[in-house]
Amino acid sequence: MSSSTCEFCNPRGETVVWSDARCRVLHVTDAGFAGFCRVVWNDHVTEFSDLDEADRNHVMKVVVAVERSLRNLLSPHKMNVASLGNQTPHLHWHVIPRYRDDSHYPNPIWAAPQREGAAHALPRDFAARLRSAIESALG
Amino acid sequence: MSSSTCEFCNPRGETVVWSDARCRVLHVTDAGFAGFCRVVWNDHVTEFSDLDEADRNHVMKVVVAVERSLRNLLSPHKMNVASLGNQTPHLHWHVIPRYRDDSHYPNPIWAAPQREGAAHALPRDFAARLRSAIESALG
Repeated sequence: MSSSTCEFCNPRGETVVWSDARCRVLHVTDAGFAGFCRVVWNDHVTEFSDLDEADRNHVMKVVVAVERSLRNLLSPHKMNVASLGNQTPHLHWHVIPRYRDDSHYPNPIWAAPQREGAAHALPRDFAARLRSAIESALG
Repeated sequence: MSSSTCEFCNPRGETVVWSDARCRVLHVTDAGFAGFCRVVWNDHVTEFSDLDEADRNHVMKVVVAVERSLRNLLSPHKMNVASLGNQTPHLHWHVIPRYRDDSHYPNPIWAAPQREGAAHALPRDFAARLRSAIESALG
């Protein structure tokens, strides 16, 4: 896939919660998993190991800021973090709050559903709160 | 789960490819995905964001060394990296070489299989070569 056909190089309808020159944090509002976020590297890079050490440490610092912010805001039972990119080979990290009563727990969200899954409402002004928490976590 | 019942605190039958005082690299020989490795944090920690920055950077340096080594040794089509831990909440990173003709591609390995999946033989002395490659990548 070239950058001209890549959905992260040519975004449509992203909900950007936070960004800097190197990466951006998206809230995946249609995922069925409340609070699901993605950390997307802005440049069209395929693998995590294509980044140099400074860039790797930077993106993981943002991933951790998102993870900590989601833990503080939502108190999930577990956090799941993954960089897959088989369908869209542009480096992005999924950061997913998981609950014992969600549709797939304890399996990964890509496995077969286990149950209908309880609704987990987000706090009011979630995106603004998340942005503020990420900024605090990044210091 | 306490450390007394945790399979990564009380390992049985692990194939340890490389280790240091903080973490170890396992070759998951029974996974059905040739070259599947796990990077396991030695202490019983649940989430990536429970580590401090130095430890996070260390474990990701090892994850990247494994990813680069697997890319060099196996030339997969894509690499998948994930920290899930819903079933075993002890910090570990899956590092998985993926091929267009593997059983699940382009879906995650936890999804429903797509086909029987081609066999991908490992090079002779794979564990020894992988250890050597990880050591080189870590410098």
